[in-house]
Amino acid sequence: MIFSDPASVAVVGASDDPAKWGHWLARGALVGRDRRAVHLVNRGGGSVLSEPTVRSLSELSEAPELVVLAVPAAHVPAVVDEALAVGVRGFVGIPSGIDDGVINRIRSAGARLLGPNCLGVFDAATSLHLAWGRFQPGSLGVVSQSGQVGLEIAGLAASGIGVSRFVSVGNQADVTATEALLDLVSHDMTKVVGVYLESFGPGIVLAMSELCAAGKPVVLLTVGSSTAAREAARSHTGALTSTSDVVDAACRRAGAVRVATPAALVDLATVVSSGVPRGRRIGIISDSGGQGAIAADLASAAGLSVPALSSVDGLPAGASSRNPIDLAGAGERDLWNYARAVEVLVRSGEVDTVVLSGYFGSYGADTPSLEAAEVAVASRVGFLARETGVPVAVHSMCADSAAVRALRADGVPVQHTIERVVAAVGDAARLGALDQRSVGAVSGPGLSVPAGRIESGDPFRGDLCASLPYQPGYLAARELLSFVRFPKAHAVTSVTEVEATTLEGPYALKADWLPHKSEHGGVRINLTDPATAFDEMEASLGPGTYVLEEMDTRENTVELIIGAKRDHSFGPVALVGAGGTHAELFKDTAIELAPVTPATARDMLARLASAPLLSGWRGAEPVDLAALAELIAQVSATLAARPDLAEIELNPVRVGPDGVLAVDALIIPSGDTLNDTSGQRVA
Amino acid sequence: MIFSDPASVAVVGASDDPAKWGHWLARGALVGRDRRAVHLVNRGGGSVLSEPTVRSLSELSEAPELVVLAVPAAHVPAVVDEALAVGVRGFVGIPSGIDDGVINRIRSAGARLLGPNCLGVFDAATSLHLAWGRFQPGSLGVVSQSGQVGLEIAGLAASGIGVSRFVSVGNQADVTATEALLDLVSHDMTKVVGVYLESFGPGIVLAMSELCAAGKPVVLLTVGSSTAAREAARSHTGALTSTSDVVDAACRRAGAVRVATPAALVDLATVVSSGVPRGRRIGIISDSGGQGAIAADLASAAGLSVPALSSVDGLPAGASSRNPIDLAGAGERDLWNYARAVEVLVRSGEVDTVVLSGYFGSYGADTPSLEAAEVAVASRVGFLARETGVPVAVHSMCADSAAVRALRADGVPVQHTIERVVAAVGDAARLGALDQRSVGAVSGPGLSVPAGRIESGDPFRGDLCASLPYQPGYLAARELLSFVRFPKAHAVTSVTEVEATTLEGPYALKADWLPHKSEHGGVRINLTDPATAFDEMEASLGPGTYVLEEMDTRENTVELIIGAKRDHSFGPVALVGAGGTHAELFKDTAIELAPVTPATARDMLARLASAPLLSGWRGAEPVDLAALAELIAQVSATLAARPDLAEIELNPVRVGPDGVLAVDALIIPSGDTLNDTSGQRVA
Repeated sequence: MIFSDPASVAVVGASDDPAKWGHWLARGALVGRDRRAVHLVNRGGGSVLSEPTVRSLSELSEAPELVVLAVPAAHVPAVVDEALAVGVRGFVGIPSGIDDGVINRIRSAGARLLGPNCLGVFDAATSLHLAWGRFQPGSLGVVSQSGQVGLEIAGLAASGIGVSRFVSVGNQADVTATEALLDLVSHDMTKVVGVYLESFGPGIVLAMSELCAAGKPVVLLTVGSSTAAREAARSHTGALTSTSDVVDAACRRAGAVRVATPAALVDLATVVSSGVPRGRRIGIISDSGGQGAIAADLASAAGLSVPALSSVDGLPAGASSRNPIDLAGAGERDLWNYARAVEVLVRSGEVDTVVLSGYFGSYGADTPSLEAAEVAVASRVGFLARETGVPVAVHSMCADSAAVRALRADGVPVQHTIERVVAAVGDAARLGALDQRSVGAVSGPGLSVPAGRIESGDPFRGDLCASLPYQPGYLAARELLSFVRFPKAHAVTSVTEVEATTLEGPYALKADWLPHKSEHGGVRINLTDPATAFDEMEASLGPGTYVLEEMDTRENTVELIIGAKRDHSFGPVALVGAGGTHAELFKDTAIELAPVTPATARDMLARLASAPLLSGWRGAEPVDLAALAELIAQVSATLAARPDLAEIELNPVRVGPDGVLAVDALIIPSGDTLNDTSGQRVA
Repeated sequence: MIFSDPASVAVVGASDDPAKWGHWLARGALVGRDRRAVHLVNRGGGSVLSEPTVRSLSELSEAPELVVLAVPAAHVPAVVDEALAVGVRGFVGIPSGIDDGVINRIRSAGARLLGPNCLGVFDAATSLHLAWGRFQPGSLGVVSQSGQVGLEIAGLAASGIGVSRFVSVGNQADVTATEALLDLVSHDMTKVVGVYLESFGPGIVLAMSELCAAGKPVVLLTVGSSTAAREAARSHTGALTSTSDVVDAACRRAGAVRVATPAALVDLATVVSSGVPRGRRIGIISDSGGQGAIAADLASAAGLSVPALSSVDGLPAGASSRNPIDLAGAGERDLWNYARAVEVLVRSGEVDTVVLSGYFGSYGADTPSLEAAEVAVASRVGFLARETGVPVAVHSMCADSAAVRALRADGVPVQHTIERVVAAVGDAARLGALDQRSVGAVSGPGLSVPAGRIESGDPFRGDLCASLPYQPGYLAARELLSFVRFPKAHAVTSVTEVEATTLEGPYALKADWLPHKSEHGGVRINLTDPATAFDEMEASLGPGTYVLEEMDTRENTVELIIGAKRDHSFGPVALVGAGGTHAELFKDTAIELAPVTPATARDMLARLASAPLLSGWRGAEPVDLAALAELIAQVSATLAARPDLAEIELNPVRVGPDGVLAVDALIIPSGDTLNDTSGQRVA
């Protein structure tokens, strides 16, 4: 492929000045000269890096397949036109400011452009080094929208996991991040993928899903959680759905994990490069009770469990058998006791990851006579991790030593601070939890199957979407959402109609047409005299269609909000939250890409902080969770199937042991469905 | 002082074997030989480290003032007895397992012991190096209950802030952590204090307060948040008060900040060593939009604000003037643009801390011709931070370079990962917030004044504590808590008494003697027919004293829980939490050491996630916050003043615009006040 293993490359703008990009790119390109022809182009002629140059591409006897544009943007049009004329098929556009006309000419000619405004591409498998920076070959595939963030990732990976392929996609004028990710599915050297994105184009979730399905864990780094305005909130659902919540939902759907920093990305990739932990249980070994306790506290805060151990035969004498295991003096007495303790844990079947924290890694540095033994123990630890598939991660008080390097060379991540170790193990456990969930997800309307399939095969669509066109108002929403149970109600336009009702009190009275009724005096509840209430409300709001409704008088119900909306990047999204003020005050919501299956809806409910209220709080009867999950699934499927709807909201929904009742409903139509550039419709 | 600057020291157990403690301690002791006599004692005689030794302390012509016990525990008794006989005044007890008899003999002789089971003591001001490990002289004072955690702290400090004094207190058989902390108040080299504790002895909060009052910020590292069993919960107050919540409260009272790891301790100490930030506003500078955004997201998650800037004149051309400031190509074009951007921010008055993130620090490493200029820019950045007192913290993609070392030498913290930078700045801002609060706290019953003063001067005591002895039951609790408003109620023991009531319905009926009424059918509410309810409850629970009570029928009230309890380490603690299920499900509580002033009680209320419910939620009238704060203060003062009470709980408390009403009360007496080893009574 042209950006993976071109037959020949030319660096236009090659330079001998070490402060110039053209110098780094020429030097990098020459690394691959055993595999491909490398041409250096310099307007001034002469030699660069002791290699001959040509003054222009036209001087070459044969067109290079790939051209690196390392010249100022002003020179790019002439270089590109000359290149296209001689038949160049691909460009790496380093400078920013390449104008659209040039980009269009490249695309019209059927050639491809990486960038512009990018740092280039590196491929360890093909000795393709057309990027700024130094790369240590390894197994992490990197796709980055920001060149420098990509470079930081590559730099952090250099002392450990290394980089298999690095693609700085820049402005994505032609080659997109999605394409760059999909290339990695079949890139053998790539075992784990790290991706930095600031925006999400079509197909990103699908590309991440395919990588995960191919057994290559994906770690997503993104930004904007602090600044992104929430999308214009026309409903509580909108107000409760932040951009980063939706990104997290997209990651869950794809089987990927989101992190907040380059180091967290690399650390997680390193931990899982030799295997994803099967669960959240960690075993901790330290030669200091204090350091073990610090690790245990961090682990617990990161959502890991530090279980008591039952079968810990074989620990060195003097070591505690409680988790964290405190070697006390045993490690100092005999360094092999470190390996023995690791072995006991990785073979115990009682933990999913092992963390070793403390002095190990420092012995040889402080007492050179101990170095050889310490390195041998380090190798044994690496062997044990590989053999058992139980990841081992190490915190060493020594930043660098022969033993530390030996551990890293064996694939064992080593950090100088315990927080980096535990954060990575916590993230790895999150990834492991997704892995296990995906067994069920592939048979549902998840993204592990091609997006097209869902359109025909979705079991939730059926009669939900084909039916009524959108009409404003509460009664129309009740009709459209025919699968929802509401209290009995009917329209009233006069006090006579109110008095003639056959409904049973107490009543609610609502102004049918108001989307936010309570803010405008358009709802009154617990009425025993609805006629008087009608007179008062009509006097205030004017004539119109009002709704007289029976109250839900069941006791011991729990209130929730159920909604669905369309996100501009990721498409339909489902929401469930605690009712009343709880969702808002306590951020007690769960969000997934829509549609969701009832099983996923149950997961969402279980994630709520207020979940205990649903499953039999203080001796109460559990609520009808099945009906609740079904309702969440149906609301989500309806929004997913109807592009004419922007938001659906049932708020509040009241659920008890005997079922679910929605006590209000709001539907917001899409502003203009023709111009709806909702981007990726993920299902 | 004997452990700070002894006139003479002897290392007993001095050895030439580099794997032995006696070797490290002898080597360390000799560092101070220009200042004091240093004697090496070795049973075998001969020379150690090319210095002559004596076979026993008796051979010395003059008794050393301080003796380091670097011999196996079995040999300690003989060495100590000999030392006491010749008049030694102090011991550093390295080995564990020194028995109580020896310790008692030391104390009886009026001598002092540091340890046992410790790593020793280091004092940079007096060249006293009687500890395992290497120390870089600097300004961080370290007191550690765990030798190795202390060593990790010292190691992390070595590349930056350095250590002024290091005291490994070990088992604290004689010298306590409190004493070691108080020593640092007048230790001039010590500018910041880091302390690692696993348990909290008497006076710790006071010692931390005195350090803070002396302008030396205190950073506390402790453990147990994951494992510590909550104290036996006899009330909701007990169940809602975790050990680590109480530690946090103690830190707030002292003006200290708690962290979770050695690196967090050192990083925070480094940031504040040249000044505590005045607030939470940070300015971010990066040469990459991605890295700036990552820093901003982290900052926001850490509770910092990244404000928009109004006056940012003077930024280099091409740089964005939004916060984060993106230098784009400006830094690469001219390295001095980094310093210019820093200068604009530190002089703007619009931010309290500046973070520089990205490539800076790497220029010289990648392009040696740039090194000198980069180092000069680094020095300028250090100068600007010192001159303006606005801390600057740097994240560099380069782990080590001349520029990185220049920054550190100038007191500017530099980290290889942005998360470490932002975490430290966030912690520093927490410390800054405490600093500002303490202006008010010193005049209240805080710990900035000696503990004794509160006994006589506390404005809350007065009539609260002197009055009624504890009696069991709800009615007795109402009487004892005479400052609390309750609904009207009276005792009833027969249905006749119920029928004769003059109270107004609806009623509540309660079994007076039951501490947990609802779990045992001992409370019924909203009664219109209390006589029938009485018959039923008496049939179920048997004859006894019941309470007939009016219901609080006010609408628009907010329910809270108010409580106070006695913590085994820190003494009286005050709690307020959201009512009903909220406190429990959403962990919505605030805790402080008791007694609290009404002002502190208001702070506690403001910290609740449900605080918006109190201050006029969705147009409602604000509740009576003053009455609420007063009630919290009075409950806390009552518990603090009455050692015979273990817990006081008002649950629920209902507050509206017209005041506060407690709807139930529970008092739990201290189990045995004579044996109450509640340790530190902090107020």
